[in-house]
Amino acid sequence: MGNCCERLGPQKNTYVRVSLPAVCLVWQIAMIILFGVFIRYGKESDAHWVEYKHKNNLTDIDNDFYFRYPSFQDVHVMIFVGFGFLMTFLKRYSYGGVGFNFLIASFGLQWALLMQGWFHSLDLDTGKIYIGVENIINADFCCAGSLIAFGALLGKVSPVQLMVVTLFGVTLFAVEEYIILELLHCRDAGGSMVIHCFGGYYGLAISWVLYRPNLHQSKQLHGSNYHSDLFAMIGTLFLWMFWPSFNSAIADHGDGQHRAFINTYIALASSVLTAVALSSMFHKRGKLDMVHIQNATLAGAVAMGTAAEFMITPYGALIVGFCMGIISTFGFVFVTPFLEKTLKLQDTCGIHNLHAVPGMLGGFLGAVVAAAASEDVYSKEGLINVFDKEGKYANRGMGTQGGYQAAGTCVSIAFGLVGGAIVGFILKIPIWGDAADDHCFDDEAYWELPEEEEETLPPVLEYNNHMIHKGQDITESSFCVEQS
Amino acid sequence: MGNCCERLGPQKNTYVRVSLPAVCLVWQIAMIILFGVFIRYGKESDAHWVEYKHKNNLTDIDNDFYFRYPSFQDVHVMIFVGFGFLMTFLKRYSYGGVGFNFLIASFGLQWALLMQGWFHSLDLDTGKIYIGVENIINADFCCAGSLIAFGALLGKVSPVQLMVVTLFGVTLFAVEEYIILELLHCRDAGGSMVIHCFGGYYGLAISWVLYRPNLHQSKQLHGSNYHSDLFAMIGTLFLWMFWPSFNSAIADHGDGQHRAFINTYIALASSVLTAVALSSMFHKRGKLDMVHIQNATLAGAVAMGTAAEFMITPYGALIVGFCMGIISTFGFVFVTPFLEKTLKLQDTCGIHNLHAVPGMLGGFLGAVVAAAASEDVYSKEGLINVFDKEGKYANRGMGTQGGYQAAGTCVSIAFGLVGGAIVGFILKIPIWGDAADDHCFDDEAYWELPEEEEETLPPVLEYNNHMIHKGQDITESSFCVEQS
Amino acid sequence: MGNCCERLGPQKNTYVRVSLPAVCLVWQIAMIILFGVFIRYGKESDAHWVEYKHKNNLTDIDNDFYFRYPSFQDVHVMIFVGFGFLMTFLKRYSYGGVGFNFLIASFGLQWALLMQGWFHSLDLDTGKIYIGVENIINADFCCAGSLIAFGALLGKVSPVQLMVVTLFGVTLFAVEEYIILELLHCRDAGGSMVIHCFGGYYGLAISWVLYRPNLHQSKQLHGSNYHSDLFAMIGTLFLWMFWPSFNSAIADHGDGQHRAFINTYIALASSVLTAVALSSMFHKRGKLDMVHIQNATLAGAVAMGTAAEFMITPYGALIVGFCMGIISTFGFVFVTPFLEKTLKLQDTCGIHNLHAVPGMLGGFLGAVVAAAASEDVYSKEGLINVFDKEGKYANRGMGTQGGYQAAGTCVSIAFGLVGGAIVGFILKIPIWGDAADDHCFDDEAYWELPEEEEETLPPVLEYNNHMIHKGQDITESSFCVEQS
Repeated sequence: MGNCCERLGPQKNTYVRVSLPAVCLVWQIAMIILFGVFIRYGKESDAHWVEYKHKNNLTDIDNDFYFRYPSFQDVHVMIFVGFGFLMTFLKRYSYGGVGFNFLIASFGLQWALLMQGWFHSLDLDTGKIYIGVENIINADFCCAGSLIAFGALLGKVSPVQLMVVTLFGVTLFAVEEYIILELLHCRDAGGSMVIHCFGGYYGLAISWVLYRPNLHQSKQLHGSNYHSDLFAMIGTLFLWMFWPSFNSAIADHGDGQHRAFINTYIALASSVLTAVALSSMFHKRGKLDMVHIQNATLAGAVAMGTAAEFMITPYGALIVGFCMGIISTFGFVFVTPFLEKTLKLQDTCGIHNLHAVPGMLGGFLGAVVAAAASEDVYSKEGLINVFDKEGKYANRGMGTQGGYQAAGTCVSIAFGLVGGAIVGFILKIPIWGDAADDHCFDDEAYWELPEEEEETLPPVLEYNNHMIHKGQDITESSFCVEQS
Repeated sequence: MGNCCERLGPQKNTYVRVSLPAVCLVWQIAMIILFGVFIRYGKESDAHWVEYKHKNNLTDIDNDFYFRYPSFQDVHVMIFVGFGFLMTFLKRYSYGGVGFNFLIASFGLQWALLMQGWFHSLDLDTGKIYIGVENIINADFCCAGSLIAFGALLGKVSPVQLMVVTLFGVTLFAVEEYIILELLHCRDAGGSMVIHCFGGYYGLAISWVLYRPNLHQSKQLHGSNYHSDLFAMIGTLFLWMFWPSFNSAIADHGDGQHRAFINTYIALASSVLTAVALSSMFHKRGKLDMVHIQNATLAGAVAMGTAAEFMITPYGALIVGFCMGIISTFGFVFVTPFLEKTLKLQDTCGIHNLHAVPGMLGGFLGAVVAAAASEDVYSKEGLINVFDKEGKYANRGMGTQGGYQAAGTCVSIAFGLVGGAIVGFILKIPIWGDAADDHCFDDEAYWELPEEEEETLPPVLEYNNHMIHKGQDITESSFCVEQS
Repeated sequence: MGNCCERLGPQKNTYVRVSLPAVCLVWQIAMIILFGVFIRYGKESDAHWVEYKHKNNLTDIDNDFYFRYPSFQDVHVMIFVGFGFLMTFLKRYSYGGVGFNFLIASFGLQWALLMQGWFHSLDLDTGKIYIGVENIINADFCCAGSLIAFGALLGKVSPVQLMVVTLFGVTLFAVEEYIILELLHCRDAGGSMVIHCFGGYYGLAISWVLYRPNLHQSKQLHGSNYHSDLFAMIGTLFLWMFWPSFNSAIADHGDGQHRAFINTYIALASSVLTAVALSSMFHKRGKLDMVHIQNATLAGAVAMGTAAEFMITPYGALIVGFCMGIISTFGFVFVTPFLEKTLKLQDTCGIHNLHAVPGMLGGFLGAVVAAAASEDVYSKEGLINVFDKEGKYANRGMGTQGGYQAAGTCVSIAFGLVGGAIVGFILKIPIWGDAADDHCFDDEAYWELPEEEEETLPPVLEYNNHMIHKGQDITESSFCVEQS
């Protein structure tokens, strides 16, 4: 069994005992200092609210907390359980999937509060960022971009690299979001553009730069088993169920949140049916593939991100979901293998099909729906309200708004691709502790695994794999292997 | 091992590559057309709300979204994670449990928005159905009826059959609900009658018609394993925790929702203790049975569905939970085997004990509590408010109301039994791709399973698969064990 | 292999067929009687609310239900899925972890409604306890104390003993809570003192009295496997995500809830980074340990329980999380083994590091933050509001308040240690059906396990079981593997 221990044993190049603690501690200390300098409670979360409330004849229920906190909690579940468990599908990288997701989201949301604060909420008089529930939701959103990128890299990078991906991902996110939402004055409540399209292309660009020509050497671990796919379904379902909250969390109070949730709910239902239909149709025996059920069923919501708060109509939402279920499943079956073969693009979770393309299409869809908006459909006040036609934007025509929305989508793609390529090159520096091509998708590298791991691997297969790898000679007697 | 491979191999009769995609795509297109013709945003989810709000001196918080959305999300989790994971308990049908639940609920909620809309919310002037959060909750509720029926059929029907079960289930639901709530003017906030009683008898009737005399040939897969039972506990707990939201989701604003949640919360706690007590008592060595913990603990909430918003008193709720935990566990231990033996009724999940009987008893309980209602207990306004004693029902006596409630329960049973029998006969047509009696409870039929399936099957099978793959020479004698 | 079968076989001393049903049924009947005598709907959940509302010019949204129900549901998930699944990490005690948690929390919340009602909400005129959503949240909180204690005892006690632990735990909780919150007039919204500190020391004292000198005989089951650790992560994440709701659930309406959630959210993020850093740093090869990720990541929220609603500032919350992640991980690595060795204290889940110490530190932290509170920071009205400086407490200085807070922490420790020691001695009476030292951590004792349990045990054992069942003849040579 000595050899066996070697196989499962440490890989020199994945030693992160210095770099991982250093990055976590130093960056966390930096967060504390920056929070100390910049972050303060917002008006509605400060103890002064009691006086403010009395002065302005408000009641407690007017506090934004009661409008947004339930949606926040749903978003929070999506970020940590949704994304986290969706990435447990690999049979021996489930800890990495859910654990590193946990780590980088926890860092990302802190950094996002600062980055988004500087760009969106900085009070120029006091130099402080005043935070409340909406900032917190946006911080979770901002993390989502980096978590999407993680999907493309799953199993191939070290936790230290993921921290770097998140540091730059959040930074780029805050800048592109500022350009899209503030400078171009686009609407993007559910983040088709700023979250999914950006996050998708960001991850794909990094993965493209980090291409591993010999990844096939890890193929015995590059797949799921019966229960790991079931764990991943937990992630899928929590994403699917709570996506109506995601798209409505920061929509306008009242009808805006109400409509955004309905549109997303409807689009998602439709995606499930077409994803199932295509999954069965593309299999030679008509069987369903868990990869499609876990992912393509969600594509409708990604594409509804921008348009969810618009008057896209319920049947419009159904059509979006219908098309996205088809496009996404098609992508998993044909496009991802094609990209890997021709573009040398390795995309572990298929974020191309769930985030990049549906996000991009959602951005353009939002442009079209915005351009088609009219006072007939929205009412005069409604149109102003939905598209924030105030101040210098009061006279912007809806066609122009559509053009700006389309431009916003292009900005997000550009930020994703260029930013991702740069970050990819940074990650190629051989100091980050990533595994060799033949040791990817293996929790062994970064996790102390339970001793009884034999329990979930088939003993003889293990043994034989071992034999094959190590070229060990086996006589009959060697089947007297003992469980350690 | 040849036989073994055959066993796991493809079954001609479960080929759904044409029928499943056809049903999904055609029905989804039909939904789009019908939504296009009929469904529009409701007053509170339309962009015109801003003007409406100003005219009526409302504020955003008055939007029904804020009264019901948190409850909706809990209900949504119950439908997809609760029901879905509860049905993962079979060791090799977990994908089917959670996956087909996902599929049919996604179809059912769309069809429910239409069917319930036509019966309850159709604006006769415009011919449109205007939807908002309450319609969405009701659509989820309506699905629940068909998901309950799925519980009786789990592992024995094809996904195409389940789509048919859902199509008719939602249709029948909308009609019986119209009769019970509108024509008989019953109250049934948590759906003991319209959801559980109907859904339970609907599923039992279908299963009775589809009786499989040789189902024992699949008995080696008709059971759980250690981790599949743990996955099922996820379903149980999310159902259990969120049932207070289920029963209060469409109760009256204010005290109605508040009281419905408290009653359900209390009844559920009581069910757990009696389910545990009986489970231990009925086992010859006093051990607990996961089937009872997963199911009978929920029975109190089913029976509280109708009476949850009434003034049943907290100790009344405790008594209901107490009795239901006992009745339901008793049902699992004695009644289900008895029904299978004498009535030829195969009920995979035991919905008879969790939904049919508790739902029926809950309906009659509601009748009794309604009949006993008085102005002393409810206050004059309270009585009007709780029982909607308005218009032509203003003078209906409480005894009469109780009679109507009891009649409503009978209507739901009748719809379940008759409707289920008819649907059962439709499903007997041999075109639906269901598995043979000796291939039930097996995901292999409809799912592309991970290659490493050996991991969860006995080791010798593994070994032999491996041998076949690797062409390794092994003496026959050492591996004579066959999977039973 | 005969011994092996014996090992898995029934143990006479774990026979609970009489005691468990008796305790469950008798105590449940007692609850019904006591509820009948004492518990009534509160003003806001009674049908009279409609008249009350009209008299007082209130609207439905003013009902406390809408302020607290979303937080309640999150807390409820923490109690049943959070605590429940966190305790599934043992490879063969997952049913016991989640199932007994379910049982005792269901009992505890009923008893808590009574105990807390008598101490906090008894209407002296009518002799009744009027309940609403806040009482329900507090009942869930009260259970948490006993569930924490369960963590120290996991795998070593019988379900009957756990019922006793809960009976006394809830009782002691209600008394110490009364002393701390009412007599000492402390603030403790998230329960660092009354829940975590008390629950932690209560469990540790019980475990200390129940020391098992030969527990090492069960060491083969005293660990996790790959999937049991993943199930535990479900618990961790739901605790982590919903802890902001836990700490804000009963905080003041408006800014109080808003601020408590933000502080907790921030502290938790910080804990994750330091827990990861220390986990990697303390491992000789820099690998992460699931125990730390599952537990130490939560420590920041425990310590923020008292101070969450204070103006601790966002960076203050970050610092708390930072320190707690370090202290808690350090505790798991060094202190728990040290306590076991020197104090003979066996603490299965390490509640010392997650609840006892962070709770105690959180109590003292709250004392310091309270002592430092000033009108500058809180505003005049804000200070009164946050610290309930009303009636006879209007003139209590903030330094004095800090002293009382510190005294409250000491009270909770004392109640935990003394109460736990007494309960421990009660549990030593040999009538409770707990397992012998060599049969701990084994669901076999109290659960009917699936027949195919071989699937998760090593293959040769399976084979032998099979052999015994089938009476098949097999040559000795082929099966020389032993389970260790």
